[in-house]
Amino acid sequence: MTTARTCAARRGTCDGRPRAYRDAVLIDDLPTPALVVDLDAFDRNVATMAARWPGATLRPHVKAFKSTALARRLADAGHRGFCCATIREMEGMAAAGLGDDLLLANEVLDARRLGVLVEGGARITVAVDSPETIAAAAAGGVREVLIDVCVGLPRCGCVPADAGGLAEQARAAGLMVRGVMGYEGHVVGLEDRAERTARGDESMAVLAAAHEAVGGDVVSGGGSGTWDLNHTVTELQAGSFLLGDTAYAKLGMPFEQALSLVGTVISVNREGGWAVADVGLKSLGMDHGKPSLAEPPGARVWITSDEHLTIGPPKGQADPPARIGDRVRVIPAHVDPTIAYHERMYVTRGDEVVDTWPVDLRNW
Amino acid sequence: MTTARTCAARRGTCDGRPRAYRDAVLIDDLPTPALVVDLDAFDRNVATMAARWPGATLRPHVKAFKSTALARRLADAGHRGFCCATIREMEGMAAAGLGDDLLLANEVLDARRLGVLVEGGARITVAVDSPETIAAAAAGGVREVLIDVCVGLPRCGCVPADAGGLAEQARAAGLMVRGVMGYEGHVVGLEDRAERTARGDESMAVLAAAHEAVGGDVVSGGGSGTWDLNHTVTELQAGSFLLGDTAYAKLGMPFEQALSLVGTVISVNREGGWAVADVGLKSLGMDHGKPSLAEPPGARVWITSDEHLTIGPPKGQADPPARIGDRVRVIPAHVDPTIAYHERMYVTRGDEVVDTWPVDLRNW
Repeated sequence: MTTARTCAARRGTCDGRPRAYRDAVLIDDLPTPALVVDLDAFDRNVATMAARWPGATLRPHVKAFKSTALARRLADAGHRGFCCATIREMEGMAAAGLGDDLLLANEVLDARRLGVLVEGGARITVAVDSPETIAAAAAGGVREVLIDVCVGLPRCGCVPADAGGLAEQARAAGLMVRGVMGYEGHVVGLEDRAERTARGDESMAVLAAAHEAVGGDVVSGGGSGTWDLNHTVTELQAGSFLLGDTAYAKLGMPFEQALSLVGTVISVNREGGWAVADVGLKSLGMDHGKPSLAEPPGARVWITSDEHLTIGPPKGQADPPARIGDRVRVIPAHVDPTIAYHERMYVTRGDEVVDTWPVDLRNW
Repeated sequence: MTTARTCAARRGTCDGRPRAYRDAVLIDDLPTPALVVDLDAFDRNVATMAARWPGATLRPHVKAFKSTALARRLADAGHRGFCCATIREMEGMAAAGLGDDLLLANEVLDARRLGVLVEGGARITVAVDSPETIAAAAAGGVREVLIDVCVGLPRCGCVPADAGGLAEQARAAGLMVRGVMGYEGHVVGLEDRAERTARGDESMAVLAAAHEAVGGDVVSGGGSGTWDLNHTVTELQAGSFLLGDTAYAKLGMPFEQALSLVGTVISVNREGGWAVADVGLKSLGMDHGKPSLAEPPGARVWITSDEHLTIGPPKGQADPPARIGDRVRVIPAHVDPTIAYHERMYVTRGDEVVDTWPVDLRNW
């Protein structure tokens, strides 16, 4: 692993030369910006979820983390079925030996790359919601499908009344229909728990009715935000609970923030009272707004630029909130598109870097 | 290049088998999401800018496009000096033989990777704005610097009154001070041209005064938004004009939108009246808000999800704005962080793909 020696030098632990005398790599040694995972918090999140959704009842969503190394840790914890949002994710998971039961929870019009995975011995299921996607699955060499049902989120999924007919079409095309899928994505982020419960129940009633018409063993759906509210699905499609972000933190769930983005202060303006860290728009998903700061405490994010974060002092103070060379810890507002910008996550225990998880499932 | 045959099949030009009988790859053949560059529009943008800022007076900003292939086209047009925002961009440009005059327009506390480029024969200049960054440049083996001056944007750059003293410190450390740099980033996006002019002039007066104190031949600054308003800098740091986005489109400049993101409609909901395309948060920089749609005309972006764009019909209409398999053309709200998500840009003339520009300068 490449390490930035200046930080160690700044801490007085070495003179800038390679430190062969100490094996441990510390977070302060990392080049920045660096995505850092707190492994103990991550493992606690896995355990909390597994207590409610053990083994195959949890189908972790690979789109949230895009890393086969992270996925392998989940497989070792007993979750060997995964769902993906892209064909690239499916290919990478199969190539990593994690192809026991892969669901592409998304529609595709060209399934031939999935057919190649079937030929290679992976179990591949794809979501279908139209005659066109059924035809594509059959033509591409996929053998198993779920009927994707719209349960209220304006996105993919058939009109509920069409589910049974589509299942018939799929079977007529020679496909095995494993069941249904429906994602209550319009519900999972609602901060009012009672509203999240009520609207989630409405969505799942739609899915259960569609399942009646479709048949099969699988009812797949849900997400981190409905992990303890959804009593309908046979398998939960959740991923964000593993690492967390500021949006999910508002839901009052028992999952911990396990991911942060570490930056270095590269400039300070004593007159204006701000500091500038080397993290920005190209290391942060911004659709949920600005990130937050875990360190320095109380400091506020003023501006997010391509490669910079301008940080103002805590309210009522005037001096810059950090010095040149200080590290900052940023909590992303949305974890999925944040990780998609990075090549790797550094896995840590306390201050020490104990592993690296390549983000090897990016792009399409 | 991988091509998606289903689209060609849908157009009736082939039966789904490889089309050896036709050499041309069309935009409709591309797997999606696909970043597509209109080469003629791009070349016109280059020519328009070069008429005002020829040769070395334009220092194109690599952060806007992160591609050595695109940079080489600019070098062939006479612009052989570039500026970068990351060390990775500097390394990639030097490795591609584009190291005649590379400016890292950003502060770093560990310049050793830049020193390696100097040893390799590249001309490397780095921005400094503090004793710490001067010390890092000297220790890292960099020989030339610009004094970065804050001209109003709350980001990097020294307090203007410090510029002369920092130049003395840099010279005392053995560094060649080529001049000053100051970026009026708080001004370049102002939609009111009179305000953009007035506030730009204020910023450049600050930079000119700092230049008096610092000396050297170079006054570097400006951006696409002040390309015809800035009369102070000796070299313009501009990049976004090359490809464009909806934010720059509001400024009424003579540059054309040369970049779009092509997606495929994978799902349609006849009851709700929406269509879903396979582009989303992981293919679009979202800090400037939602993207716009160039095709289908009049359709509106409702929701942007990780891998999906939900598109509603034009105002007053109720039917879905597209059919399954249709292509859509999305115009990003912010070009720089959009490109940073992609592995490549497809270069096109009319409907034909004539080249591919790898986005080879991502990450740090």
